[in-house]
Amino acid sequence: MSKNAIILLSGGLDSITVLALAQQQGFDCYALSFDYGQRHNAELKAASEIAKTYQVKEHKIVKLGLGSIGGSALTDENIQVPDHLEEGIPVTYVPARNTIFLAFALGWAEVLKIKDIFIGVNAVDYSGYPDCRPEFIKAFQQLADLATKAGAEGEYFTIHTPLISLSKAEIIKLGTQLGVDYTATVSCYSADNLGRACRVCDACRLRMLGFSDAGVADPTYYQR
Amino acid sequence: MSKNAIILLSGGLDSITVLALAQQQGFDCYALSFDYGQRHNAELKAASEIAKTYQVKEHKIVKLGLGSIGGSALTDENIQVPDHLEEGIPVTYVPARNTIFLAFALGWAEVLKIKDIFIGVNAVDYSGYPDCRPEFIKAFQQLADLATKAGAEGEYFTIHTPLISLSKAEIIKLGTQLGVDYTATVSCYSADNLGRACRVCDACRLRMLGFSDAGVADPTYYQR
Repeated sequence: MSKNAIILLSGGLDSITVLALAQQQGFDCYALSFDYGQRHNAELKAASEIAKTYQVKEHKIVKLGLGSIGGSALTDENIQVPDHLEEGIPVTYVPARNTIFLAFALGWAEVLKIKDIFIGVNAVDYSGYPDCRPEFIKAFQQLADLATKAGAEGEYFTIHTPLISLSKAEIIKLGTQLGVDYTATVSCYSADNLGRACRVCDACRLRMLGFSDAGVADPTYYQR
Repeated sequence: MSKNAIILLSGGLDSITVLALAQQQGFDCYALSFDYGQRHNAELKAASEIAKTYQVKEHKIVKLGLGSIGGSALTDENIQVPDHLEEGIPVTYVPARNTIFLAFALGWAEVLKIKDIFIGVNAVDYSGYPDCRPEFIKAFQQLADLATKAGAEGEYFTIHTPLISLSKAEIIKLGTQLGVDYTATVSCYSADNLGRACRVCDACRLRMLGFSDAGVADPTYYQR
């Protein structure tokens, strides 16, 4: 019998790797993306392309009024995306983003009667966001069982985080082994409408370093 | 020094009582409501009226694509709101709704640097929704501290649930002592555009019984 899973698909390097891995593990995948007023809207186009390439069973893009809350360089036009790595938690942190994303995944999982949710969080080469840490994921899994009708009836959820302890280079090597073509992915926080990356934001720097450390040619389409 | 709090304000009987109580406890209140494709949109009009009456510091209505997930009589037109109390968790249950609502409240709280969030969940005279139980709230509070920049920096959140162990009649008595006028509130799952209640859904039945048990005249505006 086939197993179903929900994959949080941002359109970036990590989530395409997670999708490829989940399919290799035998899961039929439902992809979930969010249109949350992010500046880097090219991500969503990438997510749609990836969903098609991997022939997911359904790709849902949910609209979220995250921009109305503000407080992050990714959703608030008055806060600039920095061109250098910062100390501590950077201004690109979107308050409670992964909590909100996982909560929606949980809701959709309940409707579809799915118990497996995959998210490409990473706590090694990451930007220090608190909601990427293993202790956060563990707490969310506990919450999921208490929050839902399924959990109340004794059917438990698993939040899969296969990338959480891998370096960016290890993720790229893993994806390459799985045949992932990273050309279509967009990681940049300031990507232009064509999906071209800026080279200087946090996300670009971590990604470039990852390809370099992995010894894999960087297929990213840069603005300059 | 004044304290700030975020109040989840649905426009129903419980959340207006919570708002009145939080103000009495000295909190300056920010009200948060959701436009999630609920059938009973009259709720949102009620929430706006209540926010004005109580002169909250800000009332934010966030649009959520919950309808696109479906799976509940409250958001899916193909599922009928039942006219009788059901055994178990009823079809009016919206998958992961309170998880999603609290996640947004948490995000807004981080932006405003607020640590206190009030929600009018109730685990006595309720519809058996899993995400109204004390164990769910406790798990969310743990998650909140792990999910956020504030929590990571040692500033902890409190999820206040002052109504959780009160009966509907006790809530109405409390609100009446606080001077709450329940005329403006809408609880009905099938309210019409004028906010008039149906008398027969779960929410109407619990509300009518509450006024009756409390010995308080029911000010609800009914369709018939």
